[in-house]
Amino acid sequence: MIQPVILCGGAGTRLWPASRGARAKQFLDIVGEDSLFARTLDRAAGPGFAAPLVVCGAAHVDMVRQQSRGRRIRLIVEPAARNTAAAIALAVASATDDTLLLVMPSDHIIADVPAFRAAITKAADLARDSWLVTFGITPDRPDTGFGYIASGVALGDAGYAVARFVEKPPLAEAEAMLRQGGHSWNAGIFLFEAGRMREAMLAHCPAIYRAAEAATANAVHDGDAVLAAREQFEQAPADSIDYAVMEKDDRVAVVPVSMGWSDLGSWQAVHAIAGCDEAGNACTDDLFAYDSRGCFVRAPGKRVSLVGMENVAVIVDGDDILVMPLDRSQDVRAAASARG
Amino acid sequence: MIQPVILCGGAGTRLWPASRGARAKQFLDIVGEDSLFARTLDRAAGPGFAAPLVVCGAAHVDMVRQQSRGRRIRLIVEPAARNTAAAIALAVASATDDTLLLVMPSDHIIADVPAFRAAITKAADLARDSWLVTFGITPDRPDTGFGYIASGVALGDAGYAVARFVEKPPLAEAEAMLRQGGHSWNAGIFLFEAGRMREAMLAHCPAIYRAAEAATANAVHDGDAVLAAREQFEQAPADSIDYAVMEKDDRVAVVPVSMGWSDLGSWQAVHAIAGCDEAGNACTDDLFAYDSRGCFVRAPGKRVSLVGMENVAVIVDGDDILVMPLDRSQDVRAAASARG
Repeated sequence: MIQPVILCGGAGTRLWPASRGARAKQFLDIVGEDSLFARTLDRAAGPGFAAPLVVCGAAHVDMVRQQSRGRRIRLIVEPAARNTAAAIALAVASATDDTLLLVMPSDHIIADVPAFRAAITKAADLARDSWLVTFGITPDRPDTGFGYIASGVALGDAGYAVARFVEKPPLAEAEAMLRQGGHSWNAGIFLFEAGRMREAMLAHCPAIYRAAEAATANAVHDGDAVLAAREQFEQAPADSIDYAVMEKDDRVAVVPVSMGWSDLGSWQAVHAIAGCDEAGNACTDDLFAYDSRGCFVRAPGKRVSLVGMENVAVIVDGDDILVMPLDRSQDVRAAASARG
Repeated sequence: MIQPVILCGGAGTRLWPASRGARAKQFLDIVGEDSLFARTLDRAAGPGFAAPLVVCGAAHVDMVRQQSRGRRIRLIVEPAARNTAAAIALAVASATDDTLLLVMPSDHIIADVPAFRAAITKAADLARDSWLVTFGITPDRPDTGFGYIASGVALGDAGYAVARFVEKPPLAEAEAMLRQGGHSWNAGIFLFEAGRMREAMLAHCPAIYRAAEAATANAVHDGDAVLAAREQFEQAPADSIDYAVMEKDDRVAVVPVSMGWSDLGSWQAVHAIAGCDEAGNACTDDLFAYDSRGCFVRAPGKRVSLVGMENVAVIVDGDDILVMPLDRSQDVRAAASARG
């Protein structure tokens, strides 16, 4: 039995203005009718999976319940945002040692779920052998926006020991890794035994684990929700699980997988996986494109007309209209922070 | 006394989506709080001017009355669109021979009204001497979107006999005319005695004048409005006053004037006369421009955010959003005809 842990604490602005405030990216129907969160629930459900444990902030509880559509879930509510290590520590603190935890971000897309399931099976074998397992996405381009994982010695046919983690590289280094092979993207998806991670946290980031443990011991239980205690949880240093544990531990494995993964980390990334017309334009709404190519439009209820435009995004949400070249997608933060 | 004749029959789509249907360009507040039509009323009002005669279509009567804001006007309602020669013929047919008619489009902007008034005074002298007078805009660039007027012999210091009319020229010819001097843009503003124009029309385009005359004789009077008779008016060939009369007559004068004129014939033209910030962006609404230059935004009630954009127009009207490079402004017709 695998216990899915869905990290739902993000409130990113990278897909502003569609994503903002309580309506965070994971709750949006970015690539179809279902939200990214609902799709994440779906891909780790069924035989072999326990009811998912969702870790989220108080602002998102209503949205989580609504989008769970009656499915049984368990909720851990973070009283403050302390990055992924502390969020995972909350899940670990409430689990028995031999529980297999499958940690997943709630705002990614995985097109090939059978491939993901097959990788989970391999990862579970390694986790039972006390490996902390990360899933490595087989890269198809020298993307400089991701961290990379270098594979070391093979662990049977299940995966590899991790040789090293590489932070977001310059282009030349990304190209070299792609050419060389044996590297994958770090997607932030993990599988491990709770007891093994507890030991690792106590060794590598004890302040984080102790804070999460105390916040769990003092939690308020409200139906299916566990409200972690604020005073204790706020003591946890904010750090990512990669920095706090994975890069420090010496028994970390990677299971490479090619599964149509995207973190949808920008409107450009969304455009890359969207269904496009023959001119490369993508729009789920009412678009008239004249002599225009490679554009991405999201404008619910509006009628967008493009004349002579190339490779731009037009994103409409309520009274907000964002227009930018797709390759400037990273700069959306400027508008998001000015507009809110 | 000068009788202003305001041609208000246009329903152009060049400023789509702001301009469409009954809310034609002349009724929009393109360059400030007042509509172009209201500004046209203002610039030919006061001592020396009779109450303006507005020639418009039935669809625009309500808007004309509303934007006249209680000012006394006379209305001639065209039962069909037959271009400017027939519209002017309606005004001529209802005027006494010695009336000075000042014909003006309703959708242009003239920044320097005193310069216009001074030109009117000169033109009136020529018109009293039986010249058909056109006002020539002193060009400041080799624009290929206008017709040009070549000046001939000087008529005192009032103006010049017209040597020839030049249709929208290729760039090289426009540049040559600009270099050479003695050429001006044909702005479609005219001054003449009604009797003189009547004779000219009977000589050059009798079918148009006879149709307008019959439509006037059979008109229905409704308060301050004269509803020209449909059956007769529809007999009028559709032609511009330039083709039908001005280019054929041998006593046509031009009064050159530099008066901050624009026909606002495209969003690019609107941007050219709009007040811009130091990055060249113009917006009367709520704009956040990040690393963006030379853009024009019109989005009443919306909040537009531009990131990394240059020289584009973003025009919002209701549910319609148009995005295009300003130098593609002529292609707005494609969107207008697709969207309506």
